[in-house]
Amino acid sequence: MQDKKPEIRESLERVGVTRLKTIVMTNWKNRKYNFVPEIELTLDLDRERKGIHMSRLVESITECIEKEVEIRRGSLEEVEKSILEKLKEKHPFNHAEITMKTDLVVPRKTPITGKTTMETYGVAVKVSSDNGNYTKLLNVEVVGNTVCPHAMNKCEGRTHIQRATGILKIETGYDNKIDFEDMIDCVEDAFPSRVYTILKTEDEKQVVKEMHDNPKFVEDVTRSILNNAKNRFKNARIRAKTISEESIHRHDVIAEGTCEV
Amino acid sequence: MQDKKPEIRESLERVGVTRLKTIVMTNWKNRKYNFVPEIELTLDLDRERKGIHMSRLVESITECIEKEVEIRRGSLEEVEKSILEKLKEKHPFNHAEITMKTDLVVPRKTPITGKTTMETYGVAVKVSSDNGNYTKLLNVEVVGNTVCPHAMNKCEGRTHIQRATGILKIETGYDNKIDFEDMIDCVEDAFPSRVYTILKTEDEKQVVKEMHDNPKFVEDVTRSILNNAKNRFKNARIRAKTISEESIHRHDVIAEGTCEV
Amino acid sequence: MQDKKPEIRESLERVGVTRLKTIVMTNWKNRKYNFVPEIELTLDLDRERKGIHMSRLVESITECIEKEVEIRRGSLEEVEKSILEKLKEKHPFNHAEITMKTDLVVPRKTPITGKTTMETYGVAVKVSSDNGNYTKLLNVEVVGNTVCPHAMNKCEGRTHIQRATGILKIETGYDNKIDFEDMIDCVEDAFPSRVYTILKTEDEKQVVKEMHDNPKFVEDVTRSILNNAKNRFKNARIRAKTISEESIHRHDVIAEGTCEV
Amino acid sequence: MQDKKPEIRESLERVGVTRLKTIVMTNWKNRKYNFVPEIELTLDLDRERKGIHMSRLVESITECIEKEVEIRRGSLEEVEKSILEKLKEKHPFNHAEITMKTDLVVPRKTPITGKTTMETYGVAVKVSSDNGNYTKLLNVEVVGNTVCPHAMNKCEGRTHIQRATGILKIETGYDNKIDFEDMIDCVEDAFPSRVYTILKTEDEKQVVKEMHDNPKFVEDVTRSILNNAKNRFKNARIRAKTISEESIHRHDVIAEGTCEV
Repeated sequence: MQDKKPEIRESLERVGVTRLKTIVMTNWKNRKYNFVPEIELTLDLDRERKGIHMSRLVESITECIEKEVEIRRGSLEEVEKSILEKLKEKHPFNHAEITMKTDLVVPRKTPITGKTTMETYGVAVKVSSDNGNYTKLLNVEVVGNTVCPHAMNKCEGRTHIQRATGILKIETGYDNKIDFEDMIDCVEDAFPSRVYTILKTEDEKQVVKEMHDNPKFVEDVTRSILNNAKNRFKNARIRAKTISEESIHRHDVIAEGTCEV
Repeated sequence: MQDKKPEIRESLERVGVTRLKTIVMTNWKNRKYNFVPEIELTLDLDRERKGIHMSRLVESITECIEKEVEIRRGSLEEVEKSILEKLKEKHPFNHAEITMKTDLVVPRKTPITGKTTMETYGVAVKVSSDNGNYTKLLNVEVVGNTVCPHAMNKCEGRTHIQRATGILKIETGYDNKIDFEDMIDCVEDAFPSRVYTILKTEDEKQVVKEMHDNPKFVEDVTRSILNNAKNRFKNARIRAKTISEESIHRHDVIAEGTCEV
Repeated sequence: MQDKKPEIRESLERVGVTRLKTIVMTNWKNRKYNFVPEIELTLDLDRERKGIHMSRLVESITECIEKEVEIRRGSLEEVEKSILEKLKEKHPFNHAEITMKTDLVVPRKTPITGKTTMETYGVAVKVSSDNGNYTKLLNVEVVGNTVCPHAMNKCEGRTHIQRATGILKIETGYDNKIDFEDMIDCVEDAFPSRVYTILKTEDEKQVVKEMHDNPKFVEDVTRSILNNAKNRFKNARIRAKTISEESIHRHDVIAEGTCEV
Repeated sequence: MQDKKPEIRESLERVGVTRLKTIVMTNWKNRKYNFVPEIELTLDLDRERKGIHMSRLVESITECIEKEVEIRRGSLEEVEKSILEKLKEKHPFNHAEITMKTDLVVPRKTPITGKTTMETYGVAVKVSSDNGNYTKLLNVEVVGNTVCPHAMNKCEGRTHIQRATGILKIETGYDNKIDFEDMIDCVEDAFPSRVYTILKTEDEKQVVKEMHDNPKFVEDVTRSILNNAKNRFKNARIRAKTISEESIHRHDVIAEGTCEV
């Protein structure tokens, strides 16, 4: 049925499965990770075929994951590339892409008392194949804050402060080695202060001090993310966005920018 | 089919429709309102019947809404009661309940420059009928902030501040007149400062001043909501909850309490 | 403070407010509409300025909405254009854009019994100004269904059926008149059957018959949306996407395509 | 500051942290699991204290998780109980409760071709301590489907089908051993057919056959969940809910019931 000619001859860019959750195990830099990412896998469909074979997409995912269970190696993007390669054996396409979106937990130390905390970041990676040419799009979402420099100036050192989320996206060639951890650092260093899951009183004082010593608009945070990423990475298209959940308003404020290196 | 005996004889408390969105027009205190609420309408099902007649639930909603279009009067809870009365004519039940959840936009003045702003609140009302006895549950969700008194004490007047959401629920007899606007006031007055959609510099200075003059934990805000509601309403069960989106942490903090008047 | 030179000289594409909810009244084709849309308004920021003046963005919205309250005319996109024009008087920019996202309720008749039902659609419109040149992006989201032709073929007329959402986006010049209602028709006509809030038994039989007479993959629905839109509109870039919430899987399947007319 | 007397003397039932995400490793029935659950931990606050010590809640979580990393044993509920015991050493309370909400991935075989698939379920467990008495609330969310018996009867074997979600909650004593896997079975067996991540054509035919051989209203599914749970578990309060995403309507239909064993 899928291979029949369709009534309407129109090629489609992206056909596939989305919101598929399964277990993916990786072994990256000799550390084992278990993820339950949300997965989207799509390919293009030419105008002469009615449909794609959806079950082959899911099989490509499952077979690679099983294989990874045994060999337990590689990063999320290596698993994704192997899924696209497996899919190529099962189903024709010119363009295919796969995205995995998950949480990454990283150990940190609090600034003064040095307690170990586990901090959780949103990460995602898309690997695309265009006629055999592989590229990737890496994404991290990091929680931090903004501290209004305008109010601080007008209110004799007092100001309003709020939670903010910084997002950094990097589009680059598949072989350009970029770690999520380095991308997360670019965003965390852009905020007035990092945030922590545990803060003892001495740590909390330090965070409040850093916030007030380093007030930043949402625009400042986005520019700092762009600047940090420009200094750290090469041969990439960089996008940054910050969303500030204003404590003096019901709405959020945002700032977005892009650059290339 | 619905009236057949089911294989498994088990009564069900709540059967019906949910996430139904439609237009509801009211005329409350001589002001016309158009809402597109999300509606849930359920009734109980006894153990001897296989199913309810879902289309009669939707007809009860539609017929009352059409009628309201003509007569354009009443509050959301009056519309809800008329839907339950209409449903009673169409379908047997012992217990039925209907909830409408929507946005309420209220004009305000900014604190110093007196600019008019439109502020939006989440509101919901459930009317329940138990063997002909009507009760209601009113709910408001209001955005405000928390300002940490502990950090302020330890950091010489500096502190961390964040957006917070205050929720007030009131369960009472159907005939107990309670306005959403009064419930919203109970919550807004409980925060260190109200928030506004527009703030000119002089207004913003005032908000920052109020925040610092009036630091409050999430626990303090919840207690203030409870206290404000106790002083304002009668013959009611009151529930309050505050969620603070910490600017120094990735997670939120909460405080919940209840009381009766 | 906002007009100072920033430490990092990097221009930003989109700076502004988001998730702002307020009341917007329109009078379109002599029918009055009250919406409470979610609004995003952004402008670009050049590399030599530290920040934008956020309150002027909100003032531009508020002043136009107040004016609309009095004159009560125009469509959502006319309100949006007037907000961008107002903003131009208050704040310099090269590029600015405003999006309003809301629900649109449209009366329909059921297919056999002809009962009136109110059907609710997700709609959004973005108006962009680039150095004074206005364009728009219209978006509708419509609930329908998919009916698997492959299973129907293999299972002697039986198949699996599921809810699906069709999305149509049209990017075109500001002056190109396109009604949400026509866009909604393009999507609803692409499904195996339309869906209705009320269905009496005879209506339900008709819907089930149409589903089985007209089985469609998610790919078929997307192609039909594209084809319907190509036949209806001119001078536009068209994007279609269908998301099918499979009843035989935990995950969804999707199909996306684009074309130009 | 937290130990001061508050201005408003009102006890609070639940004060604590929510939406905290961190890594939790368990070793249950000799299988290792890595979860990144969303955690809520709250305790009660008496009327004479201004606030709780939030950082001690987070420390209790972190210290138990670290310990579990070493000893790698126990189930999620055992980890939760150890956190409440640790908290008791650090902070006074009468009532405390902790909830972890996560995904559980379980291997399955497809019905005809016997392919291995990984199926993902939403699970949560809350452990409560009331003056030293421990109870728990287990929760599973399972995707399946409903198949309308009414339409099938009226349309000569044809009907409408849709995705549905079944939810089973069990409240019982802490020592009552109940496996998530058994709860999931109670829900999956209640649907017209199970759903699978991969289905080859022969499997899909079997699923479509089971759907049509076994049509069920949302009410039927909820009753079957209740019945399955009554037959499987003891000394428990059982709650079941099914949400059906109708393929002929924009809205969902629901059925909820409870029973005790």
